[in-house]
Amino acid sequence: MTVLTPPLLAAMRGQPTPHTPVWIMRQAGRYLPEYRAIRAKTDFLTLTRTPELAAEVTLQPIRRFALDGAILFSDIMTPVEGMGVGVDFAPGPVIAQPIRTAADLARLHTLDPQRDVPYVLESIRIVRRELPAHVGLIGFAGAPFTLFCYLVSGKPSKEFGTARAFLQREPELSAQILDRLAESMTLYLRAQIDAGAQAVMLFDSWGGLLGRDDYARVALPPVRRILSALKDTGVPLIYFCNNSWTLLDFIADLPADVVGLDWRGTLSTARKHLRPDQAVQGNLDPAVLFAAPDVLAARVNALLDDAGPGRHVFNLGHGIWPETDPDAVARLVDLVHAHRPAR
Amino acid sequence: MTVLTPPLLAAMRGQPTPHTPVWIMRQAGRYLPEYRAIRAKTDFLTLTRTPELAAEVTLQPIRRFALDGAILFSDIMTPVEGMGVGVDFAPGPVIAQPIRTAADLARLHTLDPQRDVPYVLESIRIVRRELPAHVGLIGFAGAPFTLFCYLVSGKPSKEFGTARAFLQREPELSAQILDRLAESMTLYLRAQIDAGAQAVMLFDSWGGLLGRDDYARVALPPVRRILSALKDTGVPLIYFCNNSWTLLDFIADLPADVVGLDWRGTLSTARKHLRPDQAVQGNLDPAVLFAAPDVLAARVNALLDDAGPGRHVFNLGHGIWPETDPDAVARLVDLVHAHRPAR
Repeated sequence: MTVLTPPLLAAMRGQPTPHTPVWIMRQAGRYLPEYRAIRAKTDFLTLTRTPELAAEVTLQPIRRFALDGAILFSDIMTPVEGMGVGVDFAPGPVIAQPIRTAADLARLHTLDPQRDVPYVLESIRIVRRELPAHVGLIGFAGAPFTLFCYLVSGKPSKEFGTARAFLQREPELSAQILDRLAESMTLYLRAQIDAGAQAVMLFDSWGGLLGRDDYARVALPPVRRILSALKDTGVPLIYFCNNSWTLLDFIADLPADVVGLDWRGTLSTARKHLRPDQAVQGNLDPAVLFAAPDVLAARVNALLDDAGPGRHVFNLGHGIWPETDPDAVARLVDLVHAHRPAR
Repeated sequence: MTVLTPPLLAAMRGQPTPHTPVWIMRQAGRYLPEYRAIRAKTDFLTLTRTPELAAEVTLQPIRRFALDGAILFSDIMTPVEGMGVGVDFAPGPVIAQPIRTAADLARLHTLDPQRDVPYVLESIRIVRRELPAHVGLIGFAGAPFTLFCYLVSGKPSKEFGTARAFLQREPELSAQILDRLAESMTLYLRAQIDAGAQAVMLFDSWGGLLGRDDYARVALPPVRRILSALKDTGVPLIYFCNNSWTLLDFIADLPADVVGLDWRGTLSTARKHLRPDQAVQGNLDPAVLFAAPDVLAARVNALLDDAGPGRHVFNLGHGIWPETDPDAVARLVDLVHAHRPAR
């Protein structure tokens, strides 16, 4: 019997697939009653650090929906904790001692994944054992600038003014922090791949807060460094920078196989700026899951027609909202799988 | 003696100016010690409702810096209060009873500016009397979708998920709310112009949270209605939609004389999408005011060179941050005024 490549990975590599594959950012999350049931008994930090529970939560949406991809349940700050910085979740990440001086940076040691975050690697091994062979497993890390925002600000923020002002006032120290993060996230993602992740994604939630000059000078080089270092692994590399529509020419030049896009623009426009060999991932507005079923169907089909056939992984343009009806997710997955390219 | 058109208004109309005019979003605000001194004695609501104080705060930055424009000190929610909805500031707008049903909408009566917000009109008259003739006075209102976000959510939010889900679930009621707001904001801006505002600006802080479909269907029509209705006043009409880089083709089609841009993209790119007769306003990243003076100078000059001569009003890409050093603002204004087009 031939083992077929999971459609998720085939689409990322530009190979033919029987349907457009689909997964959903934050699919292992609060909109699922079975997730809330576990969280009622277990706090978030414990959940990320307990392989059996993290694996269970990763697998919940796979059991309920015909998804093509699973994404490890974890948090972008998990490896930062492993680097020696205390993080609380309240519910966003809160850093008791933000990183703002050279002495602070000295507290942030380079990550040794096997020593510092063994539970993440064990979670991946459990999920890979239990996951159906046609479902691909995605590992992930936060992009350095996004982690920098939390580390410098010390708490979630709408605009991360503290971090962005720090970047202007302290360019050298900022570059050192970003270097440390790039080195550690490279090691982290490589360890995830070694443990069984079949694709890896860099989440740059806040890169789109930067103007083009600062993005190109500050946020882009560490992303390039991570992706370049992982090229030899052969697994698809996904880069998602939220709110990056003015940055696509820079992203086209990255060694990313797949580019995640938020819901603000169209995938056909994104494709015009990206390389032909880059797949697109996205980009339905999470709000559309609250529309009537006929509106949802029209929007999903229009998005798929606009994206065109091949090199497309369907996803939301941002994480699913906790108030979403799981039945709408089931309809969404069916719609994506039933869609056939317009002739 | 000939009365010259203030450079601010000349640039908005595509007329020659001795220098690129400059004003700063939130220039009457917390980064100024003289503003904080007044706020230490007066709460925000009282300040917006007391013409002498609102005028004083409007004039403070004009006394300190060589700005080309003043903007009325007020809040986008001020006319919404006038429409019968209680608003608190904590510090963002909080609506005790959010608008989510037809009965809620009935509480939101059409604004009668003279009756409902006379203090705003009186503030404008005072400012016009005291403002030097070379400085232009800008009035403003919130764009309907942005006001809708606050009215439906009931509180500030990073993503306004409540309002965006409501828009999908209740399209007809949403359209009615937006209609009511469009009608009232038209009356409000016309009254501001009658009282002496020399240009008016529609602030669409949250339009850029919408995908293209929803923006074009929901947020754009009420903006078009307001601007079209005000065309006969002859004053420059400014539309600023934050995070609107994927929406510029729609904005190019609006009867806006001036288009405000955030800091994410370049003004030369924006100009390619906009009409040749539309001026651009913006768009320095507020974070750059924290950079060293030589970096600030390089960034300001690069921005001015990129924008090209004419039809440009210099501004930040978003409101100035409270932590900003007023001396950096003084340097910024001097840099803009000293800049001459590259030959």
